[in-house]
Amino acid sequence: MSSQKVTFTSIVVGGGLSGLLMAMYLSRMGGRVQVFERRSVRTSWPRSGRSINLLLSARGLSALRELDLEETAKKTISVPVYGRTVHTIANTTSFVPYSDDGRKPVHICSRWDLHRMLREEAEGLPNVTLHYGQQCVGVDPDKGSVSFVDTETKQQHEVSADFVIGADGTYSAVREHLLRRVPANFEQTVLSLGYRELTIRPEDQDGGGLDRHTSHDWPRGRHMLFALPNLDNSFSGTMILPLNGRESIESLRTETDVREFFAHHYPDVSPMMPDLTDEFLSRKLATFLTVRTSRWHHRDKVVLIGDACHTVVPFYGQGMNAAFEDCAVLASRLLAHGDDRESAFAEYVALRKPNTDALAEISVRHLDGLVDPVRHSIRETRHRMSVRLNRLARLPGTRLYEMVTHTTAPYAECVVAAARQERRARWLGLSVLMAFYAARSWIDHVSRRLRQRRSGMKSQEA
Amino acid sequence: MSSQKVTFTSIVVGGGLSGLLMAMYLSRMGGRVQVFERRSVRTSWPRSGRSINLLLSARGLSALRELDLEETAKKTISVPVYGRTVHTIANTTSFVPYSDDGRKPVHICSRWDLHRMLREEAEGLPNVTLHYGQQCVGVDPDKGSVSFVDTETKQQHEVSADFVIGADGTYSAVREHLLRRVPANFEQTVLSLGYRELTIRPEDQDGGGLDRHTSHDWPRGRHMLFALPNLDNSFSGTMILPLNGRESIESLRTETDVREFFAHHYPDVSPMMPDLTDEFLSRKLATFLTVRTSRWHHRDKVVLIGDACHTVVPFYGQGMNAAFEDCAVLASRLLAHGDDRESAFAEYVALRKPNTDALAEISVRHLDGLVDPVRHSIRETRHRMSVRLNRLARLPGTRLYEMVTHTTAPYAECVVAAARQERRARWLGLSVLMAFYAARSWIDHVSRRLRQRRSGMKSQEA
Repeated sequence: MSSQKVTFTSIVVGGGLSGLLMAMYLSRMGGRVQVFERRSVRTSWPRSGRSINLLLSARGLSALRELDLEETAKKTISVPVYGRTVHTIANTTSFVPYSDDGRKPVHICSRWDLHRMLREEAEGLPNVTLHYGQQCVGVDPDKGSVSFVDTETKQQHEVSADFVIGADGTYSAVREHLLRRVPANFEQTVLSLGYRELTIRPEDQDGGGLDRHTSHDWPRGRHMLFALPNLDNSFSGTMILPLNGRESIESLRTETDVREFFAHHYPDVSPMMPDLTDEFLSRKLATFLTVRTSRWHHRDKVVLIGDACHTVVPFYGQGMNAAFEDCAVLASRLLAHGDDRESAFAEYVALRKPNTDALAEISVRHLDGLVDPVRHSIRETRHRMSVRLNRLARLPGTRLYEMVTHTTAPYAECVVAAARQERRARWLGLSVLMAFYAARSWIDHVSRRLRQRRSGMKSQEA
Repeated sequence: MSSQKVTFTSIVVGGGLSGLLMAMYLSRMGGRVQVFERRSVRTSWPRSGRSINLLLSARGLSALRELDLEETAKKTISVPVYGRTVHTIANTTSFVPYSDDGRKPVHICSRWDLHRMLREEAEGLPNVTLHYGQQCVGVDPDKGSVSFVDTETKQQHEVSADFVIGADGTYSAVREHLLRRVPANFEQTVLSLGYRELTIRPEDQDGGGLDRHTSHDWPRGRHMLFALPNLDNSFSGTMILPLNGRESIESLRTETDVREFFAHHYPDVSPMMPDLTDEFLSRKLATFLTVRTSRWHHRDKVVLIGDACHTVVPFYGQGMNAAFEDCAVLASRLLAHGDDRESAFAEYVALRKPNTDALAEISVRHLDGLVDPVRHSIRETRHRMSVRLNRLARLPGTRLYEMVTHTTAPYAECVVAAARQERRARWLGLSVLMAFYAARSWIDHVSRRLRQRRSGMKSQEA
């Protein structure tokens, strides 16, 4: 990052992961930043029912690298994970590497560890101030001022700055007030599935047969269990199942229901879940939301980042990575445009929106392959065939997963490249098939000729 | 309405038209009602840029009738209007009656007059309390409690009751907090058009040729002017035009731009607009929003009414009528179910949602016919033909507009009935056409026979 100094004051609404990272970027640029967070006690950050384990991949790490935090994140709070172990109901397993060469890991870390790391870093910066227990209740997008109610004193106060960054998540108050000022298209969709976090605690040190350097996936068609390793010997499991119908959140109400369900569908792993029924019946249900908004900024005064403008479902593990990428892109645009913040914001939106839209789509699509073992293996096979056929023809061949996870190529470009590969693979596949039939008919032809010649010779002999 | 007493306490968030009407309904049922409104000074209700003239039709009047307010509304604050006068660019006019017999009027009244009437009525009720300057900043949908910040003291306080009604409009805070608790699908779409209110003030008493008992419509393809009579001699004009492109909000920036635009496209009416350029350039731009949410209530604690759950574009003039109908239906369900409020709320949603969804669709569709003179006349002709063909076959034939405006048949049923009529009209039309061809071919056949016979006779003679 350039060392050019830009002097400005800014308000970041939301002291979650992306709010803190953005504050650090702004501080590096010479700005004064005030971060306002609704939650009050910063030490006992509440577990809101959202996934507690996160996947740090190339994009997230690249943003952390710019702030010299990549190594700390990798070494002190993460477990490298090299692929997914798929457990069938017949207790067999197969392994799907996260990268084509099987050697590039993703880094799994706890949301709370990462948050603590970022908070401690931000608190150490002289021009960043963190305010807790501040609920945003109003934004004036023309003035760049924000009203907060102090959750302790219940008193409302107003703060102004050169600009405001809305990093306040899926239910963003900044976005809501922005859309009141400038109406725009907005869409929130929820899947008919829910999830609950469950703890998997293998008793023996070797993980009870669960490799700590892969994720684990028990796809069962209508529902699935997914597990990511923690820093200690345990795993965080995510049980995904329909909200209604048979084998659903609705149908599993008693301890017996839950115990029988898990014993039947997840017999290998349920013995490793000592608090299963308790956790399943008491933990908050989380749902899968996608949020899209056609407006991300207002003039040079307000701009949104992260979940506030593009909540995606977590199946691709890219929500946080995309939010961190937002921070890096927004910071680079602000540096590039200097005082012309309106152009910086507009360019940031133009660079990001098509890509987060693409991410939203592939994130929902990715679920199919995770939950359904048959579709999973069909898709895996198709992807591998497609990559191989492309490489056979000496063309670039990379799985979509690899591009999304291990590169920083814009999401939309990854999707286009993958589609191009698939198309080429279909043609190449067709060519192979045609070559095969051509060869067979040539062989047929030749052998028929040979036979004719032989029988001709025989008749001559006769 | 039955006189059965139900004792409960309730909070209505939003003291607009539907909030006040709902409060009156609840009060009649024996409930204690507290209404909380964000705006502070109740006398100088701000003109927010929204349409200031409203259309009261059968549904709205029916809801007012139940509270003995119909006659007051009709007689003291409304102008009866019997149809639409369409003004062409060539300065000719045509008239489209609002009812099939041309005798049933709709009642045009000012939003502020209607609001004042309802406020005064509500204030007169002993068990209704109105609180002003109260911004809703939180709802606990499980407890039925609401947090407000007093806009004067800036202090937050909490209120609880048996249940909460969200009547706080398009940008409903109650809905927002409801959707945080129970994620649901939500969609807000905005048209690429905007509108500004303009005053039309004919100098002479007879309205300068503008009939005060019709609405007036100057359709110009890309844009249009629409006018509704006020209680005095003036009309409220609504100028609808695209946000961008040629002849748009964006392209009309100077007094000269505006004056030339109106002189060119609206030469007959612009001389009657003394403050045209001022109003056009200074008044707030309003946009056309549709809001849909898949969740309208939470258990027996929170329920939404009006724009909060179904904002529609105003082209059909049904937004307020639908909101008033909500109040009547919700009240009747509460009376029917007594203490089982959850069933009452669920039944209310089941009765209303399919209908307001249908209204949202026909409201957007209705714009085409208003703005585009060609489409307008094609559609009018088709509708008339369809009604006539149905009646010719002694089948019920009523225009969709008539059913929506002059009956209280559920919106979705009106749409289905209109579609059925159109289908029948196509078949009837086809039958007429077939009968015509059949007749022609029969005549052909007969005349050919006659000719043959004659030529046969001639050859015999020869």
